[in-house]
Amino acid sequence: MDEIKVAILGFGTVGEGVYKTIRSHERELTAVLGKKVVVAAVLIKNKEKKRNISEKILITTDFNEILALPNLDIIMEAIVEKEPSFTFLKKAIKKGCHIVTANKEMFAHHGKELMKLAKEYNVKIGFEATVAGGIPIIQTLQQLFKINRVHEIQGILNGTSNFILTEMREKKQSFATALNLAQEKGYAELDPTNDVEGNDAFFKLMILSRIAFGEEPDWNDVDLEGITSITSELVENAERLGLRYKHIASIVRKGNKLVGSVKLITVGKLHPFYQVEGVENAINIQSDIVGSITLQGPGAGMFPTASAMIEDLVFVNEKQNLQKVGYEKTNDPITAVI
Amino acid sequence: MDEIKVAILGFGTVGEGVYKTIRSHERELTAVLGKKVVVAAVLIKNKEKKRNISEKILITTDFNEILALPNLDIIMEAIVEKEPSFTFLKKAIKKGCHIVTANKEMFAHHGKELMKLAKEYNVKIGFEATVAGGIPIIQTLQQLFKINRVHEIQGILNGTSNFILTEMREKKQSFATALNLAQEKGYAELDPTNDVEGNDAFFKLMILSRIAFGEEPDWNDVDLEGITSITSELVENAERLGLRYKHIASIVRKGNKLVGSVKLITVGKLHPFYQVEGVENAINIQSDIVGSITLQGPGAGMFPTASAMIEDLVFVNEKQNLQKVGYEKTNDPITAVI
Repeated sequence: MDEIKVAILGFGTVGEGVYKTIRSHERELTAVLGKKVVVAAVLIKNKEKKRNISEKILITTDFNEILALPNLDIIMEAIVEKEPSFTFLKKAIKKGCHIVTANKEMFAHHGKELMKLAKEYNVKIGFEATVAGGIPIIQTLQQLFKINRVHEIQGILNGTSNFILTEMREKKQSFATALNLAQEKGYAELDPTNDVEGNDAFFKLMILSRIAFGEEPDWNDVDLEGITSITSELVENAERLGLRYKHIASIVRKGNKLVGSVKLITVGKLHPFYQVEGVENAINIQSDIVGSITLQGPGAGMFPTASAMIEDLVFVNEKQNLQKVGYEKTNDPITAVI
Repeated sequence: MDEIKVAILGFGTVGEGVYKTIRSHERELTAVLGKKVVVAAVLIKNKEKKRNISEKILITTDFNEILALPNLDIIMEAIVEKEPSFTFLKKAIKKGCHIVTANKEMFAHHGKELMKLAKEYNVKIGFEATVAGGIPIIQTLQQLFKINRVHEIQGILNGTSNFILTEMREKKQSFATALNLAQEKGYAELDPTNDVEGNDAFFKLMILSRIAFGEEPDWNDVDLEGITSITSELVENAERLGLRYKHIASIVRKGNKLVGSVKLITVGKLHPFYQVEGVENAINIQSDIVGSITLQGPGAGMFPTASAMIEDLVFVNEKQNLQKVGYEKTNDPITAVI
């Protein structure tokens, strides 16, 4: 049987989730794609760390070793920060690899350039996992909202911040204790600055803006606030008034201008995000025909984000197949059944 | 410029919404499809009723006149009940027309047969509008959840019932008054039996079951309850306990068996549907990798359902184009921008 050869870049929470899911869902992947998905290599940072990876797989700290693999089909990138990811992915595209990425910071900065390069080299990029973990918001906006004109998007886009705010309210904990717990549970990055300062939500908001509106506001014009000003007293006072603190990223079209903000605000019971708690993310889309649609689900954690990457793995591969064999998927059990 | 020639069957709330939206979003449709969408005919029931339809369009009570139109591309069906819709659509498919339908009763009964026939005649069927109005739940399940194994789906699938329950609680109205208001607002069908007896939610649940699980439970084994047993007293007593009545359709895989039910139950504040109010619909999907995802939005009304049909119009047409010209869509502004 033909194989789809995959390399995973990064073996943190998300990378490991991708690895485990490819193995646990081997049967489903083969059924949908008509080929076996094989992890050929994993790029790691620290050679000393013990990992549970099959011995048949190339484990390396040198990206060039991965690039040198023959017939590599897809790079699944789950690293943080812009570099070296951007450089790696450019090289991979030029070698003809499809890309699936979960790296929001890199993609917010360089997504446009990567998409252009991908078009030039006739490969595809899946970036569902860059925004809101397992919630299929990118493909919903791209595939399912083609005629609706989007007016406004608002979202709880950072699971760590929402988890901290929820813990502080529900368990009357301090910010520091709640943050520690988020890190222990693997929600927060080792360096949580991007989460609690709002940068992570900002990057995701810019990615959504490009999909929904075809453009972004000037980054410098976006009001950016994190959750570090929150205190137990503020949370308790709000609760006495029936309000909850939520960290909300929003972007709205006003005339010809896009106005974006990432802010810590209090919301009442009638707000669509009042009951979005813990690591949950939620996105509300306001558009002209359908009105208001909300998607809610897990925004962080090993498997939700891995799920988005695995679904993207199918997505980029199907797009490739489409060009080769036409649309009809003979191996899709869903299509076959109906 | 090439045209896409459309006939609309039925000019009730949904049919009229489709007609208006094709006209109001002509520019977007042309941009995405590369062709102008033209309404060539409308099938009506009552010739005497005054309607605001352009004089250039064939308005008829005779489906055969529509079938006789040359080069008809797509049938947009927005009638109720199984017949004559099923017969009409079979004929249209055999003539090579794509189908977009909002008719849940017909599709729950005959969807399988229509899909088989469509495959035979190489046309496509869009049925997003059959479930949950404007919420893109069908395509989310079909396109975006290919590897996730769904365990359970639960939903508030009938906007009219949810509207009635909300009105009764919020405005302390009787069942009859709330039902009248739902009819005035165009949410309920003229004959509301299917809404308030739970049949409408049941049909939608069976359509979802086929997509999510590839099969349906035996219809006779599904517990089916409507909302007609509700009284103002019950609603008030529940509210005193912090509970709300919700009409919830659910289907869960237990071993090799699918267990379905449509029931009026009380839910507490922590239930994902506690705050789903008015004509809102919501669907919660539990699957193995991503966990729990909820989609919420307008489940009834002129434009939400029309929105689903218009997005399907693009969808079936793109599928057709794919077979002709390969995947790359040169006219998609979203793809072009990124």
